Amino acid sequence: MAQHSSSLDEVFGALSDPTRRLVLGELGRGPASVGDLARASPMTLPSFMKHIRMLESTGLIRTRKAGRVRTCTLNRDRLAVVDGWLAEQRAIWEGRTDRLEQFVTTPQEPS
Amino acid sequence: MAQHSSSLDEVFGALSDPTRRLVLGELGRGPASVGDLARASPMTLPSFMKHIRMLESTGLIRTRKAGRVRTCTLNRDRLAVVDGWLAEQRAIWEGRTDRLEQFVTTPQEPS
Repeated sequence: MAQHSSSLDEVFGALSDPTRRLVLGELGRGPASVGDLARASPMTLPSFMKHIRMLESTGLIRTRKAGRVRTCTLNRDRLAVVDGWLAEQRAIWEGRTDRLEQFVTTPQEPS
Repeated sequence: MAQHSSSLDEVFGALSDPTRRLVLGELGRGPASVGDLARASPMTLPSFMKHIRMLESTGLIRTRKAGRVRTCTLNRDRLAVVDGWLAEQRAIWEGRTDRLEQFVTTPQEPS
């Protein structure tokens, strides 16, 4: 549970930055080199690399170096924790609705 | 677009903290007072209030004070930006798959 929670902290934290979301969107189209990804960003390479490293440490992307080129790949499965959390919330809401419906439709015993 | 992006920054940022996610989960069951929500947390009331204020400023919850009691309500609609972002990502992935499928299934013209 604690691990699950810290995983959500990390993934939601990673998604809270526009540069990182842009990288994830780009990688959704297919693997790309850090160089190509960085060229689409106005920031310096060292600043950009911090975002890449954060995405990698969160497990949202994987990187592999061949020669001088580091290629990044999206790890879609990692985004499933977001789906999971949203599904949990919906289950809570529906549980609430079910209880309300039960209250409304169950004939009340005369006291 | 900039507003859309900053809205995602805020919502994902709000969701990156376990106390704030716990509050959203609790409010998914129905409105609750700040006092009741705070009692479920080990932190001091002033620290807890910072989370409540952040959730309110992000629009994820609404609060209303009646006498000495401040009641919080979940604003589910605000979570829709997360669904929207995930749907965008899936559309990107599917676009990619479509292109791959097209490539695999379209007979290549002899060059």
